[in-house]
Amino acid sequence: MVGRNFRMTIEYDGTDFHGWQRQRSDRTVQAEIEAALFTMTRQKIAIHGSGRTDAGVHACGQVASFRCETRLAPEDFKNGLNGLLPADVVVAECRQAPDAFHARYSAASKVYRYRILNRALPSAVDRRFSWHVRAPLDLAAMARGAERLVGTHDFSSFEAAGSPRSHSRRTVYTAAWERPAKDRLRFTIEADGFLRCMVRNIVGTLVEIGAGKRCPEDIEQILGAADRAQAGPTAPAKGLFLIEVRY
Amino acid sequence: MVGRNFRMTIEYDGTDFHGWQRQRSDRTVQAEIEAALFTMTRQKIAIHGSGRTDAGVHACGQVASFRCETRLAPEDFKNGLNGLLPADVVVAECRQAPDAFHARYSAASKVYRYRILNRALPSAVDRRFSWHVRAPLDLAAMARGAERLVGTHDFSSFEAAGSPRSHSRRTVYTAAWERPAKDRLRFTIEADGFLRCMVRNIVGTLVEIGAGKRCPEDIEQILGAADRAQAGPTAPAKGLFLIEVRY
Repeated sequence: MVGRNFRMTIEYDGTDFHGWQRQRSDRTVQAEIEAALFTMTRQKIAIHGSGRTDAGVHACGQVASFRCETRLAPEDFKNGLNGLLPADVVVAECRQAPDAFHARYSAASKVYRYRILNRALPSAVDRRFSWHVRAPLDLAAMARGAERLVGTHDFSSFEAAGSPRSHSRRTVYTAAWERPAKDRLRFTIEADGFLRCMVRNIVGTLVEIGAGKRCPEDIEQILGAADRAQAGPTAPAKGLFLIEVRY
Repeated sequence: MVGRNFRMTIEYDGTDFHGWQRQRSDRTVQAEIEAALFTMTRQKIAIHGSGRTDAGVHACGQVASFRCETRLAPEDFKNGLNGLLPADVVVAECRQAPDAFHARYSAASKVYRYRILNRALPSAVDRRFSWHVRAPLDLAAMARGAERLVGTHDFSSFEAAGSPRSHSRRTVYTAAWERPAKDRLRFTIEADGFLRCMVRNIVGTLVEIGAGKRCPEDIEQILGAADRAQAGPTAPAKGLFLIEVRY
């Protein structure tokens, strides 16, 4: 293969992006990084993310790989890109990767986190990075619902409607709720892969369980139905972070 | 006195405000709240903050008071204002106050917090709410510098140049550094009052101490000089939060 293979870890504030993936006109993270790579190298370099993130979704640990014929060291890419990129994207790490490494195809699992502010009042300071849910939520019920997601299931009930049909079986390794502060809830989910809007649809459903509109046992029935209409609403993008991709 | 007296606690993200105080044309927190009060009551109500905060400074616990002839309950003001205000201002609390209460004149002390991200790389997600300092900082030295601020001193070395001359003696009750995470530093300072830019000038000076450009003992000499030129640079507004006003 041509050139050397590089692997980057990327942090971004998704608020002002139309998601990860390059698009014709909208501002995307991939396009910003490719534009900066072009400025650095005068080469049109396509980068491959571990997966798309939707508009408004954040990342602390997105991974992307790219090939390039260059004498630049990984550290040069990291420093050069951080000098060129806007403040809402940071290249946290860049290193040389084995030839066979591909950010998407080599990924073994991904970890997402979802943040909820659970109190009567919204927050002025944290409004970009959490979902404000007024109704008191029962964390124990949400945890019991989440447990039922662990394992290999057909997750099509939690897939965005109208997604292209391929197979929708995924294996969830962990799905757990924590309460890092009195009015904060945090959901962490790791799976071998995620369908479109899967985490946000799961969170929307678990929040209905936490608010007492459903019971934890409903998860089994929802999974079994393989019908998006059975699950709850899609939680807002702004609470969601891609925190790690594991290889 | 006319009307009833109300006391509000206010949270704001200062990023997009030209500070607290009403100005002819720029967007300010006071002007937003007064405009919302006018919409609610059709009365021109002037609110009194505990003090100004500069452009870009945030607050979790700003306090303001206002008088109004009304049948509305404090809770109605809170809910009504939160329905009208933009997302970067939240009224966390509103209650009726004794007639003599005035947010500024009744204040006994104020507590400010300053947040620093201390590592090589900036943060995409936290860039609005902390100062990114690349140089490794010696927390113990900064703490020794901070201790020397406690007590009653002439703080004019830490006052913004060109501030109107009045008396510049203030009493600092606490001034302490913590490390809430490996790459995070947090400074908390309580005083009976603050001069213009005082916290940011103190932080700028203590960061020079932390970076080894000055020693902690310099604080005594700086205070004694009563000369702004002796202290360090002004730390950026975005790391600063007014967290509490005590009465």
